[in-house]
Amino acid sequence: MNLFKKTLAIAIAVASVAVVSSVMAEEEHEKASPEKMAIEYRQAAFSMIKFHFAPMGAMVKGKMDFNKDEFAKNAEAVAALSKFPIHGFPEGSDKGADTEAKAEIWTKMDDFKKKMETFQVEATSLAEVAKGGDMAAIKPQFGKVGESCKACHEDYKEN
Amino acid sequence: MNLFKKTLAIAIAVASVAVVSSVMAEEEHEKASPEKMAIEYRQAAFSMIKFHFAPMGAMVKGKMDFNKDEFAKNAEAVAALSKFPIHGFPEGSDKGADTEAKAEIWTKMDDFKKKMETFQVEATSLAEVAKGGDMAAIKPQFGKVGESCKACHEDYKEN
Repeated sequence: MNLFKKTLAIAIAVASVAVVSSVMAEEEHEKASPEKMAIEYRQAAFSMIKFHFAPMGAMVKGKMDFNKDEFAKNAEAVAALSKFPIHGFPEGSDKGADTEAKAEIWTKMDDFKKKMETFQVEATSLAEVAKGGDMAAIKPQFGKVGESCKACHEDYKEN
Repeated sequence: MNLFKKTLAIAIAVASVAVVSSVMAEEEHEKASPEKMAIEYRQAAFSMIKFHFAPMGAMVKGKMDFNKDEFAKNAEAVAALSKFPIHGFPEGSDKGADTEAKAEIWTKMDDFKKKMETFQVEATSLAEVAKGGDMAAIKPQFGKVGESCKACHEDYKEN
């Protein structure tokens, strides 16, 4: 083999490895495991809930001016979104990506679902109460939503 | 200063830097900019929509067995979630974190909102049609939802 052919052969080999690696990376990206997808799904749902929950908390605590329309919209969003996280806890999704979900979720699924439902019920009540725009009525119901988050986090979330 | 004191002084200095860095990192974490939060919010919303959209696509294409109840649930989820991404595009959130959103979104916001509304309308129709469980009726409406995604992505999403 002359030098030109050698160089060409090496170049082709290097390019092939690059192409194969890239295709494999692409496939890996496309074929995220169902567990990884579920974990990312529930994290997305919780992050959206937090996005709407945080400004309500700031208003309740007086750290932000109370805007009743904004509050009502956020309360409605949390109520609607509260139905979604449960889809992200299929059997086996205690592993598969970084997660703070404790394994107890799957051994005590009935209790976990019950706590999720309490959150849904309290969040739906908050959306109703928020329509009235009366902070005196909103505050205790906002507290109940927060407690429903906390009750579940204490038992089923690391940190 | 004797060796013991020197060592102690250095240890305290190192520990202080570690504590300060950790506190700063914590504060940075807590104080994500509103733009970053908006970008992460819309990405979370789109990823949740994709999670429910993908199995419907697989069923429509015959790559997965058609389960009408599963399909209807996913269609309902996409319809509900279709109302959320728009909250994640406040003025100024063309920057602040990795994003594929084009700057044109904010210069053509009326058109962008119109396209988002088309998606909401088509997704809501799909949820209705899906209740019937008839793939012959579902398929064209699923196509319309897909087109509404594509129409917006073509104008307003990189890649």
